[in-house]
Amino acid sequence: MTAVTVLQKTSVDAPFTQAVINRRELRDDDIFIDIQAAGICHSDIHTIRNEWGEAHFPLTVGHEIAGIVTQVGDKVTKYRVGDRVGVGCLVNSCRECQPCREDEEQNCERHKVGTYNSRDIDDTITQGGYATGIVVPEHFACRIPDSLSFEHAAPLLCAGITTYQPLKRWVKAGDKVAVLGLGGLGHMGVQIAAALGADVTVLSRTTAKADLAQELGARQLLATSEEDFFDRHRGEFDVILNTISADIDVDRYLSLLTRHGVMAVVGLPPEAQPLHFGALIGGAKVLTGSNIGGIKQTQEMLDFCAEHGIYARTELINPDQVDETYDRVVAGDVHFRAVIDTTKLPRPE
Amino acid sequence: MTAVTVLQKTSVDAPFTQAVINRRELRDDDIFIDIQAAGICHSDIHTIRNEWGEAHFPLTVGHEIAGIVTQVGDKVTKYRVGDRVGVGCLVNSCRECQPCREDEEQNCERHKVGTYNSRDIDDTITQGGYATGIVVPEHFACRIPDSLSFEHAAPLLCAGITTYQPLKRWVKAGDKVAVLGLGGLGHMGVQIAAALGADVTVLSRTTAKADLAQELGARQLLATSEEDFFDRHRGEFDVILNTISADIDVDRYLSLLTRHGVMAVVGLPPEAQPLHFGALIGGAKVLTGSNIGGIKQTQEMLDFCAEHGIYARTELINPDQVDETYDRVVAGDVHFRAVIDTTKLPRPE
Repeated sequence: MTAVTVLQKTSVDAPFTQAVINRRELRDDDIFIDIQAAGICHSDIHTIRNEWGEAHFPLTVGHEIAGIVTQVGDKVTKYRVGDRVGVGCLVNSCRECQPCREDEEQNCERHKVGTYNSRDIDDTITQGGYATGIVVPEHFACRIPDSLSFEHAAPLLCAGITTYQPLKRWVKAGDKVAVLGLGGLGHMGVQIAAALGADVTVLSRTTAKADLAQELGARQLLATSEEDFFDRHRGEFDVILNTISADIDVDRYLSLLTRHGVMAVVGLPPEAQPLHFGALIGGAKVLTGSNIGGIKQTQEMLDFCAEHGIYARTELINPDQVDETYDRVVAGDVHFRAVIDTTKLPRPE
Repeated sequence: MTAVTVLQKTSVDAPFTQAVINRRELRDDDIFIDIQAAGICHSDIHTIRNEWGEAHFPLTVGHEIAGIVTQVGDKVTKYRVGDRVGVGCLVNSCRECQPCREDEEQNCERHKVGTYNSRDIDDTITQGGYATGIVVPEHFACRIPDSLSFEHAAPLLCAGITTYQPLKRWVKAGDKVAVLGLGGLGHMGVQIAAALGADVTVLSRTTAKADLAQELGARQLLATSEEDFFDRHRGEFDVILNTISADIDVDRYLSLLTRHGVMAVVGLPPEAQPLHFGALIGGAKVLTGSNIGGIKQTQEMLDFCAEHGIYARTELINPDQVDETYDRVVAGDVHFRAVIDTTKLPRPE
């Protein structure tokens, strides 16, 4: 077993504190990753605040992990010590069901193991990436291209793949794509859609982020609060990527789509949204969603990002700043992803 | 001008009565169709009962029209006197906008003219197919294959194309397809899905129509009222065609889909339906709708039906039975489409 330092909470109200836990003995196909950077995803906050069901305390979250392989199991073939790798939202699955065989481990029908707060195959609760190290099966790690720094790569493992999957599926070069919301997910969506050859518009409540949107590759940012916005942009977009987790007027956003246009949702508002079927029927529109992606596609996304110079715009924080950063993430004050500098956590002897 | 006998209503509460009206003088590209059969669509009822906005009385409805060409305009090239043709929900469009150029007249952006209760290009209100004859541009007529009787073909012009379009778009041979509802639309959907090579299941509240479903080509009918229905059939269907116009629990029906499964709605409940985005996100499911189809695809559908022995199961009624038949349609008592025998209406001299 290998001791690692983690940032953990012992209850919803407790602050993050450092602790030392043991990662499991390497199995034949495991690798040990010395974590260099760990992104803060809004899901981490929902989970550890008990907003998405029960958190199993003491708990370490984090599923945007980038680091260096320092140990390999006896039958590991994909990686060697020294390789740069990342881990996202999944650390195991049955690898036998049809979704697993079709490289959609995120849809595993038998035993999908999340990177934290999830029951592992050995019945322990998984502990995430706000840590100095983690052990995962080599299958669930992806190679980080050399041109991507650990800090810039970590958020790709969740925010990157979450937006890459629906855009890759639905966007053709030349399409007009609207990205709704310009936060951690949206700022990845803009870059990826632009690299896929789309003409990208950011939709935001105000024009405050217009310059940021253009720097990321959008042609323009439109403020949805402007007068007659929905009338003036009716039928304009081939694809809308909805990255916000708040309630939206689905019917009105669908009216912005062209015939056969697609609105893909990756944000998850807690309440049901009212939808008139008429908004889908006229023009045969499509409303769809998606949830991260499989390991093979996550690797494809990392390679795509490296090829196109795409990376997460980040703010590197110290391990003792996580609590305050959570409040800033919730307030929308972080542009666009906070990443914990886990090199500043002590490596246990 | 040509005088025709129509069945019209002069107000919501008035019964249908016979009247004589003039159809317009043939333009160069017009044909006159002597109507042999006119299907009764639920839309006719909604329209003439003022349930879908304002009906312009006196009004003749009917957009499932089958008949014989008896006159042709000077520049008509597609049809000759004696040809067997059908007309559906559209009798004109701009024919210049992009949807029109792409054979999607149903999505015309400038001036789509419905077969009844719609403002025509000459500013008159269109009068539908419960009549002895109609004048339409040849472009908006489709050839009825010889193997289809007028009675069996008429409902294809609306119920047939409405279900053919989404099934053709989304269904692959071997797919498991569920058809929700077994009325006028559903009974076409079952036949078309089966002919596309799908394994078809009808979903109905009870098993009352199980034999009918199998005769139409379904492997089985499942009653959604059976215990644990939604748990037992979770993830089972590649495509669900929802043909009912009542409220449904969208989230639960989406749970019946496989990964990347598609639920296509063609029924139009009046109220908004609550939808949790989570029901789309897990498994990247698709919710879509569609509305009839273009003229080219309507012809393709008629040819497909003839090739596969598909036809509307009909009940032929006399022109004086329309009022009572409306009540039976609303009560779900007609299996599956009532068709008016318009040959029994007097041809004016």
